[in-house]
Amino acid sequence: MSGVPPTPIPTPDRPPSGEAPEEDAISSHAERTMSARPSGRIAVAGRRRAVIEAISPQVDGGRFAIKRVVGEAVTVEADAFADGHDAVSVMLLHGPEGEPWTETAMEPLGNDRWRASFGVDRLGRYGYGIEAWTDAWRTWRGDLEKRLAAGQDVTVDVLIGAALVDAAAARADGPDRAELEARAAELRGPSDATARAHGALDLALDALMSRHADRSNATRSDALAVVVDPVRARFSTWYELFPRSTAREPGRHGTFRDVIERLPYVAGMGFDVLYLPPIHPIGRRFRKGPNNVTTASEHDPGVPWAIGGPEGGHTAIHPQLGTLDDFRDLVREAERRGMAVALDIAFQASPDHPAVRDHRTWFRQRPDGTVQYAENPPKKYQDIYPFDFESADWDGLWQHLCEVVRFWIDQGVTVFRVDNPHTKPFAFWEWLIGEVKRDHPEAIFLAEAFTRPKVMYRLGKLGFSQSYTYFTWRNTKWELQSYFEELSRPPVADFFRPNAWPNTPDILHETLQHGGRAAFQARLILAATLSASYGIYGPAYELLQATPRDPGSEEYLDSEKYQLQHWELDDERSIAPLIGAVNRIRQEHPALQWNGRLDFHPIDDDQLICYTKRSPDGADIVLTVVSLDFRNPRSGTLELPLEWLGLPPDAPYEAEDLLAGGAESWHGGRHEIAIDPAALPARIVQLRRGAGDPGVR
Amino acid sequence: MSGVPPTPIPTPDRPPSGEAPEEDAISSHAERTMSARPSGRIAVAGRRRAVIEAISPQVDGGRFAIKRVVGEAVTVEADAFADGHDAVSVMLLHGPEGEPWTETAMEPLGNDRWRASFGVDRLGRYGYGIEAWTDAWRTWRGDLEKRLAAGQDVTVDVLIGAALVDAAAARADGPDRAELEARAAELRGPSDATARAHGALDLALDALMSRHADRSNATRSDALAVVVDPVRARFSTWYELFPRSTAREPGRHGTFRDVIERLPYVAGMGFDVLYLPPIHPIGRRFRKGPNNVTTASEHDPGVPWAIGGPEGGHTAIHPQLGTLDDFRDLVREAERRGMAVALDIAFQASPDHPAVRDHRTWFRQRPDGTVQYAENPPKKYQDIYPFDFESADWDGLWQHLCEVVRFWIDQGVTVFRVDNPHTKPFAFWEWLIGEVKRDHPEAIFLAEAFTRPKVMYRLGKLGFSQSYTYFTWRNTKWELQSYFEELSRPPVADFFRPNAWPNTPDILHETLQHGGRAAFQARLILAATLSASYGIYGPAYELLQATPRDPGSEEYLDSEKYQLQHWELDDERSIAPLIGAVNRIRQEHPALQWNGRLDFHPIDDDQLICYTKRSPDGADIVLTVVSLDFRNPRSGTLELPLEWLGLPPDAPYEAEDLLAGGAESWHGGRHEIAIDPAALPARIVQLRRGAGDPGVR
Repeated sequence: MSGVPPTPIPTPDRPPSGEAPEEDAISSHAERTMSARPSGRIAVAGRRRAVIEAISPQVDGGRFAIKRVVGEAVTVEADAFADGHDAVSVMLLHGPEGEPWTETAMEPLGNDRWRASFGVDRLGRYGYGIEAWTDAWRTWRGDLEKRLAAGQDVTVDVLIGAALVDAAAARADGPDRAELEARAAELRGPSDATARAHGALDLALDALMSRHADRSNATRSDALAVVVDPVRARFSTWYELFPRSTAREPGRHGTFRDVIERLPYVAGMGFDVLYLPPIHPIGRRFRKGPNNVTTASEHDPGVPWAIGGPEGGHTAIHPQLGTLDDFRDLVREAERRGMAVALDIAFQASPDHPAVRDHRTWFRQRPDGTVQYAENPPKKYQDIYPFDFESADWDGLWQHLCEVVRFWIDQGVTVFRVDNPHTKPFAFWEWLIGEVKRDHPEAIFLAEAFTRPKVMYRLGKLGFSQSYTYFTWRNTKWELQSYFEELSRPPVADFFRPNAWPNTPDILHETLQHGGRAAFQARLILAATLSASYGIYGPAYELLQATPRDPGSEEYLDSEKYQLQHWELDDERSIAPLIGAVNRIRQEHPALQWNGRLDFHPIDDDQLICYTKRSPDGADIVLTVVSLDFRNPRSGTLELPLEWLGLPPDAPYEAEDLLAGGAESWHGGRHEIAIDPAALPARIVQLRRGAGDPGVR
Repeated sequence: MSGVPPTPIPTPDRPPSGEAPEEDAISSHAERTMSARPSGRIAVAGRRRAVIEAISPQVDGGRFAIKRVVGEAVTVEADAFADGHDAVSVMLLHGPEGEPWTETAMEPLGNDRWRASFGVDRLGRYGYGIEAWTDAWRTWRGDLEKRLAAGQDVTVDVLIGAALVDAAAARADGPDRAELEARAAELRGPSDATARAHGALDLALDALMSRHADRSNATRSDALAVVVDPVRARFSTWYELFPRSTAREPGRHGTFRDVIERLPYVAGMGFDVLYLPPIHPIGRRFRKGPNNVTTASEHDPGVPWAIGGPEGGHTAIHPQLGTLDDFRDLVREAERRGMAVALDIAFQASPDHPAVRDHRTWFRQRPDGTVQYAENPPKKYQDIYPFDFESADWDGLWQHLCEVVRFWIDQGVTVFRVDNPHTKPFAFWEWLIGEVKRDHPEAIFLAEAFTRPKVMYRLGKLGFSQSYTYFTWRNTKWELQSYFEELSRPPVADFFRPNAWPNTPDILHETLQHGGRAAFQARLILAATLSASYGIYGPAYELLQATPRDPGSEEYLDSEKYQLQHWELDDERSIAPLIGAVNRIRQEHPALQWNGRLDFHPIDDDQLICYTKRSPDGADIVLTVVSLDFRNPRSGTLELPLEWLGLPPDAPYEAEDLLAGGAESWHGGRHEIAIDPAALPARIVQLRRGAGDPGVR
């Protein structure tokens, strides 16, 4: 790293929707370019000779920011070169938004490719960009070395060098300037030209000249952006529960106080995010009854996503859950146990939502004077009114919804699970997340979109910190392998952070319906070891709830979405102990706390899947083998690329079974693994060089 | 295709150097974006819900134009989608620069990908871009069909539809408006709502509504550019000769009149570009003698690239070659025989160039008052002064050099081979080629850069129509295959058009030095069948000149660069007849006239290389097998993917040997090929369905 030039880092943000500026992109683009330029006029700085191409990482040519968390590094590469044979110097500029750039010289990798890294140590946005220039001093110096080696007369060359040093002196001040003036004088001095030339090759002068390089014709790339999130945006372990089902006594409506009592249980399993479905008043009109019947009795509690009633809307608390003070207590108590409370942002209204009365224009009107309810023709959801983002008052609506998020941040919430973001405009989310994170860079937004691939990725690109995935529907070896390879590598890994859920209140996959206990165990271990963030909907999960509402449905029977439930947490079949063990392994192993360095390995059984994850420094290696056959014992021989993994190919290394306990000494890359799903359908093994191995770090 | 909206196509050009605008890209970028926006203000058109991503083809995110030739098609794909479930309509906008857009509806390919094509029938620049919008009419119509299928009451829905039709009527005029008003009235009519709904589903109304779709919130992509060149930019066959060596009598300096006499010989071999090294006066000071010795005698003719003497510079004719009138005669006579004369653009000066006197500031001064000569330390080239593109008067220099090109265009020249473009700034070439082609879109520029890969590609991107390649140094099967696969596919194929040369006056590869006649034959056939454009430096090539100046050198002995040569064209060893045969095959086979659809096929001999090329419509299939062993007979079994090639896997097909003559009936994909280099080291075979085959087109 070298000195800090005075230019502050411009905000490398883009407008909230690159496709939606006020003017047509095509027209405004043209205004800036050739059509505005009279024929023959030269409108460029013709002496800028270096060019910069193919900067990585970047998302869609810089349209979106890449994502990192605090403490990570951003390793930037680019092609940079110029015409001719002059030396090119390349500088990485980087730093927190709004502060002056820091500079790091980039190192050549060959083939005109350059690389440098910088660390991101603070929450918020950073910018980075590249500056490259043809470096007259380095060119002169390199040529001079060749001339001297060839024994040529360098009388004129030292004078050329002296002029370069003079020019640098003029750019410098203080001691540097004096020193450069002295060195220029030396170069012009009375002694032998060859001797003066040799004198000019010392590294002190070179460093001085680099510090005051002539960058008047340097080329600069566009600025690219990094969003730096808290570590939890990358590594998090989620537990979803319905507060209303947390009462000790069956039949009573649970409260935030009950949830506080439940915290030790959840924290004990090693979760660090407690996610609550909407906690707001629930609409009465068209309220749904148990199992989604369209007529509810007076005592049916309704669907928490039908938000809004006489008691208030998105900033109110459902009275049966308690008060805002109770909620703040819950947030505080959870935090004391290392857990964040995540709220559900579901931007839609019940017919009883105050906004339906106060902001009628935020909803679409039907010609019969009624408000347009949600539909997926021919299905009708008359208990839900979607906001109309094409409203003439769309900007008023945006501001209002942003205020909702700010309200909950003011109550101490920083983690939000966003319901169906793909049914609201992309530009809205990009704006909202940008607005919120400008003041609260600690905020985390999880996109609950189970939709088409490009829509899922767009939501990641525009700013969601984490995203639900297709994990639930990826069950074969090939599906899991190809999907997680895609998620764990650039470009996807730079903007999309998976949060893998084996179940949700909406999704009870047939694998769980039919796979028995082993399926619940296997799917949990897959989620927990393939993805740095994962979550379960409990206690349905640990209590192995597997009955669908109808055959072929992914809906739970007697789902908590429509009614209260009472859970017997101390059921002896509960897999809570296994979940606790897996989450402890995740906490102890950096390899499992990020999504990089995931490698699948061959194993000669189609029902066994085998992969390693490694920590960024490569020191922590966790091997996971999971059986996708939940009924029969399986065995297969896996093949590990030991050198690639940093393990000794010709010496024993240790394999510690992190779940079953016990350590073995392994030798060579091939290893037979036997798995009996009746015991446990997976093995999680830490691999490390043996204590006696000289290669041990 | 549908109607033409009034917006003219903006010039989709970019500034000559994207990296070199007058202001720093990083700063100016910031000015346009978030830092200029007060916190909280919404600066986007929030109702634009469609987004557009991943448009192809494009070069470096639209920074550079893609290349096509007249008569080709541009097939554009993009991802386009919106939030929610509304129907999205996607339109490809395209057309010649400065004219109103033409529109073509894009077809969905699934997975939110869309495709449409347009033809480019005129020289010059075209623009293309994409517009996408959520289509309320198509959404309503699709929903209505589902409601009707479910037997729902649609009383309110028809009123919603009527409002959409009313709104379209307001956007229309003339008969369309009247028709739409009538249809809206019908929708509101007294008859049964279900009947009215069915009535609204007819295709006539749908077409009318599409024509007047509500695009007020449409999203537009940036405009992308296509440079449309003459067909010769893609398919050309070059012959280079030194005019001064064309005299019938040994020892006499050849003239343009001699070249005119040589035309039947060159045209007879099937060449369509005759490329002449520089034809300008040659400097006297530091003139080089035969074989590049640094002292020349008074009678040595000098190096044509040492441009400029008392008789003039880049717009003058070397007196010994003739007059400008003679040159124009040559251009005309060549044209009469179907050949373009290509001139050499070598932007450098001899010490005697008039610019050295008249524009001293265009050259770098040394502290001793002399002009900086060319160097590659420790080597010095004192007969050449490079222009100083960092001169304070760089723009004057640019204008002057552009005038040189315009001068030769005024003499009828449209094809230019540019000497060492990689030693002049990229921004200069981008500007110059843009300027020239604005008025003369027929101009073709061939980049003679043998340098690093990214520099070569940059020159292609910024505007060179064709480029020399590494072909000369790609001699093994693996080298040829991987190189031409890279060149023949996107992204490279969209901006870089190879022109393959087995030899040049500067490059006599050791393959030719040691390979004998078969090497000359094989390398010619490789160039002519792998690359749509290729060239040779003759008569050295057809007369099998193979002697280097020194062992290990790629320089010719007694090179024409430094002295006159006399060539015995009727030498019986000449391979001119083979060259003529190969070039006729190229003219008869569209498969060989472009660079797409090149596929290499397995053949079980490492010294045999096997590939097919197919015409864009797939009808013309040319199989080439070349032996890279120039001494020994070889044979191998090749494997053709018949279905992929459109040939019958289960029926005989014809294989006509285009060089040796004769046709065979082949059956199945495996075929044994024997090649004896003593006869001919290659086979060129046309494959086609048999006459009795019902699949014959």
